[in-house]
Amino acid sequence: MLKIGMLTSGGDCQGLNAALRGVAKTLYNELGDKVTIYGIRDGYRGLIEGDYHEMLPEDFSDILTVGGTILGTSRQPFKEMRKTIEDSEETKLDKMLHTVKKAGFDCLVILGGNGTHKTANLLSMKGVNVVTLPKTIDNDLWGTELTFGFQSAIDIASTVIDSIHSTAFSHSRVFIVEVMGHKAGWLTLYAGIASGADVIVIPEIPYSAKKIAAAIEKRAKAGKRFSIIAVAEGAISQDEAKLSKKEFKAAREAMTYPSISYRIADELKELTGQEIRVTIPGHYQRGGAPCPADRVLTSRFGVAAAQLILQKKFGYMVALQDNHIVPVPLTEVAGKLKTVPPDGELVKQARALGLSMGD
Amino acid sequence: MLKIGMLTSGGDCQGLNAALRGVAKTLYNELGDKVTIYGIRDGYRGLIEGDYHEMLPEDFSDILTVGGTILGTSRQPFKEMRKTIEDSEETKLDKMLHTVKKAGFDCLVILGGNGTHKTANLLSMKGVNVVTLPKTIDNDLWGTELTFGFQSAIDIASTVIDSIHSTAFSHSRVFIVEVMGHKAGWLTLYAGIASGADVIVIPEIPYSAKKIAAAIEKRAKAGKRFSIIAVAEGAISQDEAKLSKKEFKAAREAMTYPSISYRIADELKELTGQEIRVTIPGHYQRGGAPCPADRVLTSRFGVAAAQLILQKKFGYMVALQDNHIVPVPLTEVAGKLKTVPPDGELVKQARALGLSMGD
Amino acid sequence: MLKIGMLTSGGDCQGLNAALRGVAKTLYNELGDKVTIYGIRDGYRGLIEGDYHEMLPEDFSDILTVGGTILGTSRQPFKEMRKTIEDSEETKLDKMLHTVKKAGFDCLVILGGNGTHKTANLLSMKGVNVVTLPKTIDNDLWGTELTFGFQSAIDIASTVIDSIHSTAFSHSRVFIVEVMGHKAGWLTLYAGIASGADVIVIPEIPYSAKKIAAAIEKRAKAGKRFSIIAVAEGAISQDEAKLSKKEFKAAREAMTYPSISYRIADELKELTGQEIRVTIPGHYQRGGAPCPADRVLTSRFGVAAAQLILQKKFGYMVALQDNHIVPVPLTEVAGKLKTVPPDGELVKQARALGLSMGD
Amino acid sequence: MLKIGMLTSGGDCQGLNAALRGVAKTLYNELGDKVTIYGIRDGYRGLIEGDYHEMLPEDFSDILTVGGTILGTSRQPFKEMRKTIEDSEETKLDKMLHTVKKAGFDCLVILGGNGTHKTANLLSMKGVNVVTLPKTIDNDLWGTELTFGFQSAIDIASTVIDSIHSTAFSHSRVFIVEVMGHKAGWLTLYAGIASGADVIVIPEIPYSAKKIAAAIEKRAKAGKRFSIIAVAEGAISQDEAKLSKKEFKAAREAMTYPSISYRIADELKELTGQEIRVTIPGHYQRGGAPCPADRVLTSRFGVAAAQLILQKKFGYMVALQDNHIVPVPLTEVAGKLKTVPPDGELVKQARALGLSMGD
Repeated sequence: MLKIGMLTSGGDCQGLNAALRGVAKTLYNELGDKVTIYGIRDGYRGLIEGDYHEMLPEDFSDILTVGGTILGTSRQPFKEMRKTIEDSEETKLDKMLHTVKKAGFDCLVILGGNGTHKTANLLSMKGVNVVTLPKTIDNDLWGTELTFGFQSAIDIASTVIDSIHSTAFSHSRVFIVEVMGHKAGWLTLYAGIASGADVIVIPEIPYSAKKIAAAIEKRAKAGKRFSIIAVAEGAISQDEAKLSKKEFKAAREAMTYPSISYRIADELKELTGQEIRVTIPGHYQRGGAPCPADRVLTSRFGVAAAQLILQKKFGYMVALQDNHIVPVPLTEVAGKLKTVPPDGELVKQARALGLSMGD
Repeated sequence: MLKIGMLTSGGDCQGLNAALRGVAKTLYNELGDKVTIYGIRDGYRGLIEGDYHEMLPEDFSDILTVGGTILGTSRQPFKEMRKTIEDSEETKLDKMLHTVKKAGFDCLVILGGNGTHKTANLLSMKGVNVVTLPKTIDNDLWGTELTFGFQSAIDIASTVIDSIHSTAFSHSRVFIVEVMGHKAGWLTLYAGIASGADVIVIPEIPYSAKKIAAAIEKRAKAGKRFSIIAVAEGAISQDEAKLSKKEFKAAREAMTYPSISYRIADELKELTGQEIRVTIPGHYQRGGAPCPADRVLTSRFGVAAAQLILQKKFGYMVALQDNHIVPVPLTEVAGKLKTVPPDGELVKQARALGLSMGD
Repeated sequence: MLKIGMLTSGGDCQGLNAALRGVAKTLYNELGDKVTIYGIRDGYRGLIEGDYHEMLPEDFSDILTVGGTILGTSRQPFKEMRKTIEDSEETKLDKMLHTVKKAGFDCLVILGGNGTHKTANLLSMKGVNVVTLPKTIDNDLWGTELTFGFQSAIDIASTVIDSIHSTAFSHSRVFIVEVMGHKAGWLTLYAGIASGADVIVIPEIPYSAKKIAAAIEKRAKAGKRFSIIAVAEGAISQDEAKLSKKEFKAAREAMTYPSISYRIADELKELTGQEIRVTIPGHYQRGGAPCPADRVLTSRFGVAAAQLILQKKFGYMVALQDNHIVPVPLTEVAGKLKTVPPDGELVKQARALGLSMGD
Repeated sequence: MLKIGMLTSGGDCQGLNAALRGVAKTLYNELGDKVTIYGIRDGYRGLIEGDYHEMLPEDFSDILTVGGTILGTSRQPFKEMRKTIEDSEETKLDKMLHTVKKAGFDCLVILGGNGTHKTANLLSMKGVNVVTLPKTIDNDLWGTELTFGFQSAIDIASTVIDSIHSTAFSHSRVFIVEVMGHKAGWLTLYAGIASGADVIVIPEIPYSAKKIAAAIEKRAKAGKRFSIIAVAEGAISQDEAKLSKKEFKAAREAMTYPSISYRIADELKELTGQEIRVTIPGHYQRGGAPCPADRVLTSRFGVAAAQLILQKKFGYMVALQDNHIVPVPLTEVAGKLKTVPPDGELVKQARALGLSMGD
């Protein structure tokens, strides 16, 4: 009897249930009743506290299109991931190892993003059999072209910008739509191109308010009375880019704006004399049903994760490379971020279309 | 030759183009080339400044599903609408009358909400032939069961709450979704019921943070680890409801929260010890394509408005009553607000379902 | 202890689960554990065969937006509903009465359309306590302005016609979209107006192929190279309208076309020389999640049905009249059809817009 | 002055306007008023008949999300494409060359699928400067991982199957949904996996009705009372696969079913004794707005096509390979089909999930 523990960790994301279903259906299809799957509740919390329960094949029925995660999730257990883990954190890790041992899990299947993968790698290095699936709407996991959730989030963010578009046009106004993405601008870049934004501001390309204002004014001169600016929540200015990490942190802590878009709105108002509106779809971008593309992707990831288990190939994340699903060692993934190359193909294509990157 | 001037005024709203099309198609269908339609740009601004242009039948093709307004819009021309209009405002009104006379408009077709209707009524009282169509996502225009835009906005607000639902469930969290509606809670009430919100807070029923907290805790005791609170942007607390208008205004000006939802979140955090998340879809609720129901409604309103013109019956707003389109005198509509009756059928039904109204 | 049996009968329809939830939540909210709800499987089949099971409050959680019915459904138990029921049918009715008695149901809550209501009325006349909810995408139930499912189906049918619109335009082609509705044209009429169809053919207004062809040619002369015809599946020609019921039945049985749209396509090809394309979305129109408007409507119907039970007011269907939920005696509803008045307001408005009704 | 002629050819497809916009915006952005773009009407028909007109930058505004094509389209000019072109066809080709010469087009930008590319290659071989973009919802163009339209069609086909899913479940029925794709099963395969179909039948893997029936019965035995079968319109049986091309053609011409799904439904009814329902969304799959993913893809293709023109690199189709946009010689593309490898990764993954491929 193979015993598999599954957990979903980190922020919400479309496709978690679809991915769980993919793993489970493949295992049941191959092993029948020779496998038992356990659901670990609320991510690593459940692993630390030994909160898990046996699941049945029917638990994975009818969840392909259901948003959220049937297992629950929680944020990262460790405040900061360092090479030297603190005492209290060591304790948490010990507790996880204890749960794995006590439950007799032959393998943990872990679905999560960057933080999750650091912990998954720690567990793997401690000898736990781990297979992971790359989950995040930010698409910023190293080693895979696509993470699941990303394509669903593009659909939502694009729909919001589309809608704002008609209002901006009717009112001859400048609108900022703030898109999720603290460290990586993938979602903003894709949604911005998809919905015809005029300016796209991403963390990887520090912005100049003057350059954004110039782009708006260039449009105004061409008779276009409105502009749409897609701003990633992790946007930073060119001045901020020159600061040390410490100085930057201090500067941001002193910032009174609820989020960066409001600051940019004020900067642009100063420069253009125009009122600038801000819309922030927020968590709306990460909830609800996965789009069909994510349902295919999660199904494929799920199959591949199950096959790694069947092949006793542990310590890997399943990844998409050149449209093939491949295993990537956790040691290569953990702690690495995949950000938008500022001179990459997609940014160049956006610029070729006449879009401003705010720089 | 009949000369018709059309304008769209106030905030953006789904269905403006569909409504313009309905009026135009009916007039062209009846009068052929014996009618000329003029588009007045940016609402009353265009009327004040004489900014209008002749339109052709093809201008009204293919706009049924297009968001925004092909005519542009602007906010109200008068800061406050009083019985005694100030000099500068009198001047604006004079300029409007001058444009109507100079252009030779036989009738103005005006699409707008509450503020718009006050001005439309002023024009009508000054002898201008006016027919209006009730436009607002807030559904707070007196005299009509439905305004156009409202049903489209319900679709969007409900979709947002649906999406947040899966995240709230997965994270065992309390979420506030702030829905548009400064003075009337229709949109919040409908979207809240449609998407299974647990608490609905509307301006017409002042809230008690303690009662909301109690509703959350009642759910928690029943094993439901999350709650969704739909809050209208015009929500007020029971304490605030006791203030004079002046005191209330002062209190709100002193409020440091970017919007009421953040204050409620803090109040609930205080009471429950839980982190409360806030999502504000904002202008997203009023942009984009009208839903099919609004396309039918605007078409019907458009036909009725055109028929009033053909019958030379001026000074009316077209309205929906008992599923029939009827004319309502502007004098009865102007300045009156249709708010949610706190003891009305729909609120009672929401309570019967076990929802809390936060009171 | 109050014992309630619930069943859903007839074709699939959006909002069945939402309506069940509305009834259940209201009963649980009012009675707590003093009510037990039983789910009867597959409509009247379960009632005939005594196939039912106790349900728990959590069974009604998270089903507000779920398509289909958690109870299953089946088509009508009686081949034809007559005043004199045949022996074999009498037996079925006896079996239903036996189940009600044996289970000790204090009331049956029945969700269904026309056929379902005939049987519900029979049960009521036999002394069973019955409360019903009006379910059908056809909106053809007598006594209520709206049935649930109708508004969701309008959304789908309109989306299909919208999509075909762009293809018809690009290819300069005439397209027929066949919309559900055997006896009533409500869905076709609403979806047709909502999506800007050029011709709308409904059962209540027999069509003339020549008149449809004339409408297409009128558009062509005006430079519009394409046309969209929305045809209800129950459309009949003016020649057929003259036939006796028996002759009509024979004529249709001899018809070789898979559905009426293909025949109309051939008739129009003959008359115009043009290839006419046919698209039939079929069952797609009645599946999937209810739209927000249907979720509000079903919630309100559910509350009202529960309140009738609490008031021991049996033998009624809950209905929408003038935007209020009211009870209508089953005796008044059973066997009566609500069809589109050929000279009603909506048809007149469609004609005023320049649409052809194919007559 | 650079003169560019653009045409869209073949069946309708989402993203045509977005792709035209991508090419145009890039050219205008780079060349300003040193480029003139001509729109050739209705595909090759306009090229044959010299029906084209100068376009302005504003013609490409606001079309990113608009379905269909602003240029119109038509089916292939040549009945069959052979190495030796018939006289009448040679004449057509001559006329095209004449139009190119007379208009002074420096380059033709051609958007289309398989048939279109054969003609584009002929033009290229005759010395015309040609750049093409791969358009088809079938995704069956050789040389590119993705064609535009494909992802939008997956969204629609998946939505239809999702909707049917709830009905199949509620009625305990077997449903066939017929998905577009005459020669390639990509769309059926992706939509089938995305929406949790139980059986997927594609042209590349001839089906056995017995095997499909066995899959349905296996599910029934496991307590699943319904099944969904996604069938590509080009599905063929294992018996048919043994026929010669001529025999197959004759057999199909003798087939009385309106489409293959109805035949499969009958075969399954025979084998299982169950009524099988068929839904055919048809042209709905290829109309309407492109999904965000297609808007990004078409924008990227558009930029790349414009850059080929700027580099005077003619005779290429722009293609997606390993997520990069690359040029592929027309000579390599023309006449070649990209079909689903029966033993490829995706089919294997579908099987691993427990899906039947009907074989």
